[in-house]
Amino acid sequence: MKFEINQAVEILSQTPYSLKRMLDDLSPEWTIGSSDRDNWSPYAVIGHLIHGEKTDWIPRAEIILSGGDNKTFEPFDRLAQFERSKGRPLGDLLTEFAHLRNANVEKLFRWELSPEQLELKGVHPELGEVTLGELLATWVVHDLNHIRQIVNWMAMRYTDNVGAWKAYLSILN
Amino acid sequence: MKFEINQAVEILSQTPYSLKRMLDDLSPEWTIGSSDRDNWSPYAVIGHLIHGEKTDWIPRAEIILSGGDNKTFEPFDRLAQFERSKGRPLGDLLTEFAHLRNANVEKLFRWELSPEQLELKGVHPELGEVTLGELLATWVVHDLNHIRQIVNWMAMRYTDNVGAWKAYLSILN
Repeated sequence: MKFEINQAVEILSQTPYSLKRMLDDLSPEWTIGSSDRDNWSPYAVIGHLIHGEKTDWIPRAEIILSGGDNKTFEPFDRLAQFERSKGRPLGDLLTEFAHLRNANVEKLFRWELSPEQLELKGVHPELGEVTLGELLATWVVHDLNHIRQIVNWMAMRYTDNVGAWKAYLSILN
Repeated sequence: MKFEINQAVEILSQTPYSLKRMLDDLSPEWTIGSSDRDNWSPYAVIGHLIHGEKTDWIPRAEIILSGGDNKTFEPFDRLAQFERSKGRPLGDLLTEFAHLRNANVEKLFRWELSPEQLELKGVHPELGEVTLGELLATWVVHDLNHIRQIVNWMAMRYTDNVGAWKAYLSILN
């Protein structure tokens, strides 16, 4: 599948609403866990997505599009959410994520990026040279990756309840 | 997490709406693929979920709860959707899934199952003896498993667009 801004935005603009629909009415046992930094609960994932809207995707795109000489991105703090969103209700985090995402998608649209601009380069602190198109495609896949992480975590809550069926459920294996 | 009907139903009753929100407004490139039987598209997954509502979860629970001597389930056809839902629009399948699921959840509630009933047994054609509680817990995890399969498939569409970031995206590896 070729990268197209419009199709990327289809996913980017749905993600907050898909997650809201998926998580908003659930008992906390399905969404909130210990603050285990190696096994993020849905709550921790939403905090991480919020932090990404503020400091990762659009700010990095702005560095690529800027006229400046230094195209190196700031490192992204993968664990910021464990401090920043501590104690806030999940519903608030979901709403904040939706607001931030909507504003960022609007900004992306307003840029009316050309195919040439999608080839412009920035420098990732660990990965080296990357293009604007790759950054935007990664934003999309990153959403899907975290939806996957959320359903994995939820499914694991029921590992001990499914008996012999465990063998058939790849999500538990 | 202990199995509780009410918490299981939270997931079961959300799934059709989460999937509708996630898939309904997307370009077909995100949802419909070749009818590859080893790599189901979101379209194929929704067909499979529909078939499960008709022939798997509640019908098997009814076998367990029935007074009959034969508690062995009918084998489930994992590939039925490739014939049954062929050619129907995805939006129709999502709506049908929601209707079937709502009716099944309502039936489950009306049974007002006791803890003792959750221990009643049926016989799975391959796995042997299983309990009603395990069947219902598996229904929940099966939903989450297929949401995972859907986001995996969608993410794979963009494998060639993310450049060096592929190394960080576990969903692509």
